[in-house]
Amino acid sequence: VSLARFDEARRVAIFGGTHGNEMSGVTLVNLWVKNGSEIQRKMVDTKPFITNPRAVEKCTRYVDTDLNRAFTPENLSALGEGDLPYEVQRAQEINRIFGPKGSPEAYDVIFDLHNTTSNMGCTLILESSKDYFNLQMMNYIKVTDIRLKSLLKASIQLVECCFTSVNIVLCDWFIAGLEVGPQPQGVLRSNIFEAMRVILKHALDFIELFNEGVEFPTCTVEVFRVLERIDYPRDANGNIIAMVHPNLQDGDWEPLNPGDPMFLTFDGKTLHYQGSGTIYPTFINEAAYYEKQQAFVTTRRETLVASAIRKA
Amino acid sequence: VSLARFDEARRVAIFGGTHGNEMSGVTLVNLWVKNGSEIQRKMVDTKPFITNPRAVEKCTRYVDTDLNRAFTPENLSALGEGDLPYEVQRAQEINRIFGPKGSPEAYDVIFDLHNTTSNMGCTLILESSKDYFNLQMMNYIKVTDIRLKSLLKASIQLVECCFTSVNIVLCDWFIAGLEVGPQPQGVLRSNIFEAMRVILKHALDFIELFNEGVEFPTCTVEVFRVLERIDYPRDANGNIIAMVHPNLQDGDWEPLNPGDPMFLTFDGKTLHYQGSGTIYPTFINEAAYYEKQQAFVTTRRETLVASAIRKA
Repeated sequence: VSLARFDEARRVAIFGGTHGNEMSGVTLVNLWVKNGSEIQRKMVDTKPFITNPRAVEKCTRYVDTDLNRAFTPENLSALGEGDLPYEVQRAQEINRIFGPKGSPEAYDVIFDLHNTTSNMGCTLILESSKDYFNLQMMNYIKVTDIRLKSLLKASIQLVECCFTSVNIVLCDWFIAGLEVGPQPQGVLRSNIFEAMRVILKHALDFIELFNEGVEFPTCTVEVFRVLERIDYPRDANGNIIAMVHPNLQDGDWEPLNPGDPMFLTFDGKTLHYQGSGTIYPTFINEAAYYEKQQAFVTTRRETLVASAIRKA
Repeated sequence: VSLARFDEARRVAIFGGTHGNEMSGVTLVNLWVKNGSEIQRKMVDTKPFITNPRAVEKCTRYVDTDLNRAFTPENLSALGEGDLPYEVQRAQEINRIFGPKGSPEAYDVIFDLHNTTSNMGCTLILESSKDYFNLQMMNYIKVTDIRLKSLLKASIQLVECCFTSVNIVLCDWFIAGLEVGPQPQGVLRSNIFEAMRVILKHALDFIELFNEGVEFPTCTVEVFRVLERIDYPRDANGNIIAMVHPNLQDGDWEPLNPGDPMFLTFDGKTLHYQGSGTIYPTFINEAAYYEKQQAFVTTRRETLVASAIRKA
């Protein structure tokens, strides 16, 4: 079993308001901009940052286009300045401040704080199962924490998927997309707020320990790997004709077996899962994914071995 | 004990999308526009109607201003047509179609379908405790129904308050503002959808029975009367500094006694209810009321005697 080595994580950013109506991150980042003592750690420069201030002001997901899908190479190199969609301008600006990837000025670690209306508990979104830093951090949070289970359904889950998000292009190592729910858009619930705060505390502690030279030994971590996106059933005109079935609603991370109820049509018919094996749905009935034609995503449960890590 | 007499209710409207991101009413009304057999009753003309189509299209509460606060005499008589805010134009148009109050063309009964992010179950909003038709209808639903309790926390509650809403000026008798929750904005949950549908079914059955000459005898009804609106604690700059306390969150309709926890500040202090008597908070942590500076409303529980009613 190998040992992965990384440089110290000196520059850490915490993004809130990438979606302006996801209130836990917006509120925490605004608090920390005023008083950052809680997020300070030895030898780490931690910067809290509101990524989409106009969307935050309007308490809406975005103004022109989804910022969390705007970090494409095309957008980042687009010319036009003030004529570009607001979030494309913002992506360029954020890339100048926190990136660009590979440059000496790029941040080492970015936390991007999100809420979901789905009953997902705390979820760290990974780009790759080779991301040992994230895997070790997640294992550290899970082992260390004693509070999350009292606040949420699930202590912390890890999901691997590949949005075209901040993740791909921005920072040098990794960005931890953090989803905490269930929480309606525009609402701040104390348990969700507290859970996000606790996770950030542990994550920053982990970074501090790592910087001090602590070696985190090989560990096994449970991960949900995204398989596909399932749309709502629709009629020939594209109109939705069914809802998430009450048996599936709020059942994020729980097994869905062949023959289990999946949707309930408006005229009362149950539609069943027709697949051949057990899957684990998540992002079930997320408000923001109606426009993305997605009722939930399916995942497969896997156990990964994370290589040991230590400072280079 | 007296007997109140009303003319038959021949013209009934069902409004969805008064707030464009409250999905149960939007979805039900869209279904019924396509196929209204479910809402047809003998000798009743029932019209399903999307009140704010632009807000529905954008899945937002409103475009320019809150339609549910736009039915003021000033707005309804405002000149300017296309230069007026969109919802003011809409209020005028709706008033022409379904009103104006006191005219022979005015509708008799309007149901206005809403969702809330608060854990309120089903709630009928009354303008006046003298509104015997609504009181009797609510009693009928409560007595008749056997399904609501399996779908929601509370079968059905009645709250008396006085928004400047559709209620005051539009239709001849009454308008039943119906709130069902908890449901995030932009999300359709099957239990909330089904609860709203069941209530509409019973309400239309009630109207049919009433029109057929059935007398509904005097009854007693429990009502929550709105006392005051409680804002979130704020700093000198008007910024919110606390959340609804976890003990109060989701506790709509439950007693709040002097000394009970009410808010939790971002630095962890509990703020207690300082009043002198028991109150019943509701609309707790409703997403749309942050902009109205309202964390919840307080109510007093009362028992009303509803006069018997019969067709004139």
